[in-house]
Amino acid sequence: MRTPTHTLHASQSHSGWDRSREAVLSVPPGTTIELDVADASGGQLGPDSVAEALTDMDMGRVNPTTGPVRVEGAMPGDALQVRIHELRPSGWGWTGLIPGFGLLAGDFPEPTLTHWHYQPSGSEPAAFGDVARVPVRPFPGTLGVAPAEPGPHSVIPPRRVGGNLDTRDLVAGTTLWLPVEVEGALFSLGDTHAAQGDGEVCGTAIESPMTAVVSLDLEPGAAPAFPVFETVAAPRDVEVRDGVIATTGIGPDLMAGARDAVRAMIELLGLRYRLDPPNAYMLASVAADLRISEIVDAPNWVVTCAVPKAIFAP
Amino acid sequence: MRTPTHTLHASQSHSGWDRSREAVLSVPPGTTIELDVADASGGQLGPDSVAEALTDMDMGRVNPTTGPVRVEGAMPGDALQVRIHELRPSGWGWTGLIPGFGLLAGDFPEPTLTHWHYQPSGSEPAAFGDVARVPVRPFPGTLGVAPAEPGPHSVIPPRRVGGNLDTRDLVAGTTLWLPVEVEGALFSLGDTHAAQGDGEVCGTAIESPMTAVVSLDLEPGAAPAFPVFETVAAPRDVEVRDGVIATTGIGPDLMAGARDAVRAMIELLGLRYRLDPPNAYMLASVAADLRISEIVDAPNWVVTCAVPKAIFAP
Repeated sequence: MRTPTHTLHASQSHSGWDRSREAVLSVPPGTTIELDVADASGGQLGPDSVAEALTDMDMGRVNPTTGPVRVEGAMPGDALQVRIHELRPSGWGWTGLIPGFGLLAGDFPEPTLTHWHYQPSGSEPAAFGDVARVPVRPFPGTLGVAPAEPGPHSVIPPRRVGGNLDTRDLVAGTTLWLPVEVEGALFSLGDTHAAQGDGEVCGTAIESPMTAVVSLDLEPGAAPAFPVFETVAAPRDVEVRDGVIATTGIGPDLMAGARDAVRAMIELLGLRYRLDPPNAYMLASVAADLRISEIVDAPNWVVTCAVPKAIFAP
Repeated sequence: MRTPTHTLHASQSHSGWDRSREAVLSVPPGTTIELDVADASGGQLGPDSVAEALTDMDMGRVNPTTGPVRVEGAMPGDALQVRIHELRPSGWGWTGLIPGFGLLAGDFPEPTLTHWHYQPSGSEPAAFGDVARVPVRPFPGTLGVAPAEPGPHSVIPPRRVGGNLDTRDLVAGTTLWLPVEVEGALFSLGDTHAAQGDGEVCGTAIESPMTAVVSLDLEPGAAPAFPVFETVAAPRDVEVRDGVIATTGIGPDLMAGARDAVRAMIELLGLRYRLDPPNAYMLASVAADLRISEIVDAPNWVVTCAVPKAIFAP
């Protein structure tokens, strides 16, 4: 574990990417920094919030990222190496169905909100009522650098330069390489999740304020075309223990296949664990993995939605 | 482990699905059967074959499936429950780049063939030259029932009724539920793989002749919309041990994202392990997992291609 030499607070944040934004910190390559991060609502939701707050949310304030951090000497074409040393979650988080957002937005028009309270150490899984216990595996949903293209860019879509990757593997111990597109790189981090399944199907994970410790280094001229990462341990230990239950979607369109697989999982969770559809959808978002199981047997592909059985109460 | 009461030989096979095909065996629900399966070339390739044999292959004979087996009393709307008890691979297999086939067919016009020799017990991983050792995790790539629609249907695309699912999770111990669409179900199994990554990106896995033991049972009126399965142990133990290296593809089209992620993995395997592109592509097909890491942050999705580091020689 590296000891950070700089700290950024959650107030030192912005929403969206812009190469003209002034850095809040400038550091030489090899520096370790600590970043406090607000939850994805930007503090609009708290432990006492109710579902209606999702409808009233100011979407211009969502997904704030702490930064940007200028890395001295970073030039377009370099790789920014981000080492994720530590994530210290707050112990509270939320998962919500936001009207108009998520893979099955048309199926779930009503705002729905679940609160999670968990051990920040990760020593205990997070309880989803008395139905399931989801392992705490904190990671930053958003980490990226400024795109070369001038002007403001929404924080929501991930990009070649990273950003809102929402990739559950990026836990502590992971190294991520991002392509630098502007002088100084301009790195920011936000959208911290206490747990998420591949796909983040309902659009929200366990959204938790968190402190992240990362170090930033440069590999000159080594920019990858898209982000690349290396992990040191798997995020799928619960799956190994007891196996999975999985649904599939099969057809010529991966998006339709993903929707079919998730719809089938929502139905299955209802039958097996008496979860109503909004709760099944939220649980899938934080614990189910979407995989492309087959993508070569034209014209049909197989998308799988797999839930580790170890999360369910015996 | 159930003891089979019937045996089908690899000669009792067919290519493609057709509800009018006569069953080679008729059994009551709850029967356990043993099926010998030819490799995906239908015996056109053997341990002495060279790459040119891929170009000359009669595609009308590929992917033979042993069967069909009629399950007495099966009616449209029922679920056929398939329990996979045992897979006994032969110890030899092949992986090939077949011109015009695979996720990156345009990038790899030349036929290329790799032979694998491994311990049939699975006690040792299968060696890929001196670069990598791939755990043997045998499963049937194809298992399905006849579709309701009359006439012949290609064996290549997977369907709502299963078929060429190429889903690596379906190892021994797994239970699979398929929707019955015709009287008697007409179950067949083939395309046995000694190992495969999610996606089977080059279009072939470790293609191995194998014997499968499955039992077939019925759940009246319980047909799922698409296949559903449940596993008892994870196929990803090597990932848990040492983590993964992963590439990404990011953009508004999942297929393009998958191609970008696989292209990046081929480049990375070349840089790290000095694999030429055809060998990197084949190794990715048998050992890399394609995942949809994010599918809600419109308009861009994240597809990840992850290779477990434990497969590489130290």
